Amino acid sequence: IKSKLPHIGTSVFSVMSKMAAQYNAINLSQGFPNFPVAPELIENYQQVIKGDYNQYMPMPGAPRLLTEIGQKVEKHYGRKVNPETEILVTAGATQAIFTAIQAVIHPGDEAIVLDPSYDCYAPTVELAGGKPIHINMEPDFSVDWNKVEDAISKDTKLLIVNNPHNPGGTVFSEKDIQAIEQIMERHPHLYLLSDEVYEFIHFEEKHISINSRKAIRERAFITSSFGKTFHVTGWKIGYLVAPKALMDEVKKIHQYIVFSVNSTSQQTLANYLPQADLSDLGSFYQKKRDFFRELMKNSRFELLDCQGTYFQVARYSEISDKSDVDFATELTQKHGVAVIPVSGFNKDKHDDHLIRFCFAKDEDTIIKATEKLCKI
Amino acid sequence: IKSKLPHIGTSVFSVMSKMAAQYNAINLSQGFPNFPVAPELIENYQQVIKGDYNQYMPMPGAPRLLTEIGQKVEKHYGRKVNPETEILVTAGATQAIFTAIQAVIHPGDEAIVLDPSYDCYAPTVELAGGKPIHINMEPDFSVDWNKVEDAISKDTKLLIVNNPHNPGGTVFSEKDIQAIEQIMERHPHLYLLSDEVYEFIHFEEKHISINSRKAIRERAFITSSFGKTFHVTGWKIGYLVAPKALMDEVKKIHQYIVFSVNSTSQQTLANYLPQADLSDLGSFYQKKRDFFRELMKNSRFELLDCQGTYFQVARYSEISDKSDVDFATELTQKHGVAVIPVSGFNKDKHDDHLIRFCFAKDEDTIIKATEKLCKI
Ligand SMILES: CSCCC(=O)C(=O)O
Ligand SMILES: CSCCC(=O)C(=O)O
Repeated sequence: IKSKLPHIGTSVFSVMSKMAAQYNAINLSQGFPNFPVAPELIENYQQVIKGDYNQYMPMPGAPRLLTEIGQKVEKHYGRKVNPETEILVTAGATQAIFTAIQAVIHPGDEAIVLDPSYDCYAPTVELAGGKPIHINMEPDFSVDWNKVEDAISKDTKLLIVNNPHNPGGTVFSEKDIQAIEQIMERHPHLYLLSDEVYEFIHFEEKHISINSRKAIRERAFITSSFGKTFHVTGWKIGYLVAPKALMDEVKKIHQYIVFSVNSTSQQTLANYLPQADLSDLGSFYQKKRDFFRELMKNSRFELLDCQGTYFQVARYSEISDKSDVDFATELTQKHGVAVIPVSGFNKDKHDDHLIRFCFAKDEDTIIKATEKLCKI
Repeated sequence: IKSKLPHIGTSVFSVMSKMAAQYNAINLSQGFPNFPVAPELIENYQQVIKGDYNQYMPMPGAPRLLTEIGQKVEKHYGRKVNPETEILVTAGATQAIFTAIQAVIHPGDEAIVLDPSYDCYAPTVELAGGKPIHINMEPDFSVDWNKVEDAISKDTKLLIVNNPHNPGGTVFSEKDIQAIEQIMERHPHLYLLSDEVYEFIHFEEKHISINSRKAIRERAFITSSFGKTFHVTGWKIGYLVAPKALMDEVKKIHQYIVFSVNSTSQQTLANYLPQADLSDLGSFYQKKRDFFRELMKNSRFELLDCQGTYFQVARYSEISDKSDVDFATELTQKHGVAVIPVSGFNKDKHDDHLIRFCFAKDEDTIIKATEKLCKI
């Protein structure tokens, strides 16, 4: 069978999680929490299971969940969205990203991705017959927007951004957002895909959602993830917000990818959302970040700044000059801590000798992992 | 935004279910059961919710579910499959079909679909840049395999079959299966997608799964659906079986469409499968079919033969000469019973004046609906 993605193997997240299990290493690689979820969420699920929610939800999502998402977007970002026409519940944010890219990218079109970039963006553009144009972020994971603008050609249809940024841990400043606005203004045929799955996980810096920017949201697809927000990555419930004109095309495609999304998880989230307090999530993870960083002070890793997401990038040049894949393998197999080599997020696996830790873990795990890391 | 599917609107299932709700009609349109699911399945779900199954499942599926599917395929069809390399759990059979088609069809390739055909096949081929070649089934929904073979060109990469057949209610005979084998043998570059989501819902005729045919299963993608088998269409858990060489490419694509599938539903099905008795499902639905047909004897609808699925096709020429869409609309809005116009399954909505009833309903619903239908 002729491959559509001949240069692509198994995702680095699967590879490292599997290695972690094999070598019984503490898994700080693939991003997922290892602590219990809110008891109220589980109670809601128990109620839903007793109810009658086992048949197809309507194609765009459970009606109450769509309404709740609309209210959340209005409350947090002042954007009034029509739940019936401008929101789509998806099988995780990954499916939201896949579907938005399928809707925009025709064969020959280009899409700009900022490296390091989440590993699905570029292959998804290729699967749609498009060409990913990779722009490197600066060493501190800030973006030189002139480089981005220089890369725009007449074929460029989509700019993909991720804010807060995985793996970089950066959050766009007001200046970054204005730069995006100016680029979008100067290139009226460009669409924007803003991956904001960590929208509530940010620290000293404020997160500015594209939902709050009138000038560009009419040409933007914005995605978020209940997996990230409520510590239930396994449920695979995300969503997409886009103006009706874009959403009509997205839904046309969505109905042939999955038709609709898991009913019981959707209904549980719909019931839970009114009682959920999202304003706490930033400080919850900030404490974890600080705890992790404090315990890593005695290590030889150089931790970069971290303003959002539950990931911490580190330079290991004081310890080793191995490639990041080899170093991550050694960490997992010899030292008992699995991490992600950042080259997994770069074009042609370009290697800057950086690794990524996930700190969405309970105290005990963070203590045990950092003990091991400090001995290296 | 330039549409990839300019000729396509909202799926007929969404349209008719929405109309059913609006006009408070009995919904025999979109296929889903309206009776309670097995209490043991719900008890298993309750246990899973209390457990720790809220984070990402491995990309190909929950390990225990993969093992259980493998045992089921071996038990029912004598096929030994490697659960790690030859099974993929998907977000419903729709996503299995989408992903298999994405894996095989490159721009310019052709895929043969037999009309009436489930509404996702052709658009999914188009989304992959391919060309669907539509072959009409005979008026009794049997297949003239010479017509199929005549349509095969050097560009034809995929033959898509659906057995038991929705909406036709037919089941392939041994002769049909042999005809498929011969076609596959004579065209070594052809792959087969066998949609067997109703594999356990068949009546007087035996269902022959492609899983049981050594000669062709090495070039086949076979899909099934727990939604259909366990009356939980909303959970959106299906799966794909294919030899490793094909599955490697499917998984590469799957990881960028959804990455992995809803964890709690997967684990519930894994726990439930050992205690589930699948041999009863045929007779369970046969009783419903017979009950529905018996009560329809006094109507002016002409019911076609039904050997599988939970759908019954009827000709309404004695009642009306309206198009099937207009007739289905009238049935829903005036007579209080929603159905599917079969043209929704045909190229260019070709209309043979047929409608489809779903009889996966409790007795009370079947009685009330047939009472209304007998008055027309
Ligand atoms: C879909 S598995 C990857 C999870 C994740 O978002 C990450 O580790 O970056
Ligand atoms: C995905 S909604 C359609 C359900 C179904 O299989 C049918 O009605 O044919």
